[in-house]
Amino acid sequence: MNFPHWQTYLVTQASISAGRSTAEIVERAISGGVDAVQLREKETDALERYELGLELRELTAAAGVDLLVNDRVDIAQAIDADGVHVGQSDLPVAVARDLLGPDAIIGCSTGTVAEAEQAEADSADYLGVGTIYGTTSKDVSRYKDGVGPDRVAEIVDAVDIPVVGIGGITAENAGPVAEAGATGVAVISEITAADDPQAATEALARAVETATPLENGGPTNE
Amino acid sequence: MNFPHWQTYLVTQASISAGRSTAEIVERAISGGVDAVQLREKETDALERYELGLELRELTAAAGVDLLVNDRVDIAQAIDADGVHVGQSDLPVAVARDLLGPDAIIGCSTGTVAEAEQAEADSADYLGVGTIYGTTSKDVSRYKDGVGPDRVAEIVDAVDIPVVGIGGITAENAGPVAEAGATGVAVISEITAADDPQAATEALARAVETATPLENGGPTNE
Repeated sequence: MNFPHWQTYLVTQASISAGRSTAEIVERAISGGVDAVQLREKETDALERYELGLELRELTAAAGVDLLVNDRVDIAQAIDADGVHVGQSDLPVAVARDLLGPDAIIGCSTGTVAEAEQAEADSADYLGVGTIYGTTSKDVSRYKDGVGPDRVAEIVDAVDIPVVGIGGITAENAGPVAEAGATGVAVISEITAADDPQAATEALARAVETATPLENGGPTNE
Repeated sequence: MNFPHWQTYLVTQASISAGRSTAEIVERAISGGVDAVQLREKETDALERYELGLELRELTAAAGVDLLVNDRVDIAQAIDADGVHVGQSDLPVAVARDLLGPDAIIGCSTGTVAEAEQAEADSADYLGVGTIYGTTSKDVSRYKDGVGPDRVAEIVDAVDIPVVGIGGITAENAGPVAEAGATGVAVISEITAADDPQAATEALARAVETATPLENGGPTNE
């Protein structure tokens, strides 16, 4: 088990990057201290994802940033990524583990305690919990269709692996997610669509650091 | 190199199987003597393709029929398929070979002599050449936007690996494809949408056998 400790986790999506390349967004996020990058780009074909993955592997390796690939175990292997992130409709965690071996980082999207416990039993190294906020409103009391920080707290109680919150998270509403016990937050548009992706990454990291609950070791400045 | 010799090759597609399951279509094609099956199902998510793949692996292994997976090397590995079939927008043949090793069968879709030569150089074991016929018309002189049997002949001349034709092929128009030097023909709807997929498979095999040119060893009755 690898137990990553990520505060900020960028999920890429070229189509909402305001005309900038995914490589440019990742470079700016790395300058802002991002801890992990997930190559997602669901809309592009495998060849494009592979070629972009090679580019992101160079950028992230040079910076010591973890690189995950969404869904595709084969692309993760082909670009020597640190691991994969699978959803509930992707290859099962246990199958990904068989293919990738014990050293890979495998994450799984979970929305319920039952899914979280299953993923941990199947050898997931971390969980992506969400959708946290159904809207990106600053008023975090309105989860709309999101599961909210309360679900993070329930899942953190139920499992021993780290949790990152995902879905509708901004620098303004990240605090309660970290307070609920998440190690960090995963975002797409909060970084990819930001005027300044570096500043957006820094603001997210500050929001998570400031909020880290004492039982998890208190605020850190790593 | 594995040099498969397939006369009939079924590419699955649940959405054009007239309400029948892909497993049922594959069973019927196996009864008709199909030589290879490719799990395609591009519209379904990875988990469904994996689960269907496990089912098809059982059926094909019991019958000694080769099973390929379209595009996804990871699913091929997870279900212990015989290999993968990649297109020009999928992972490159050389990358698939690195991941799968020397024993896997790797096929590649090619439409031109240049693509065919590249795929062979990259270690492809066979080529899918097409689209042969732009329409499924019985009048094979009208290729419409297809490359036609002539392209098969050009590619067969240029490479040493086997070629299967694909695209708009029926029992009525398969002959010229085999006469041009293709080992066999790959079809989707000619089998999946047939009233009787077993009879459709048998008819295709007869069309290929009858037409096999003498320079390739003449008609066979394997």
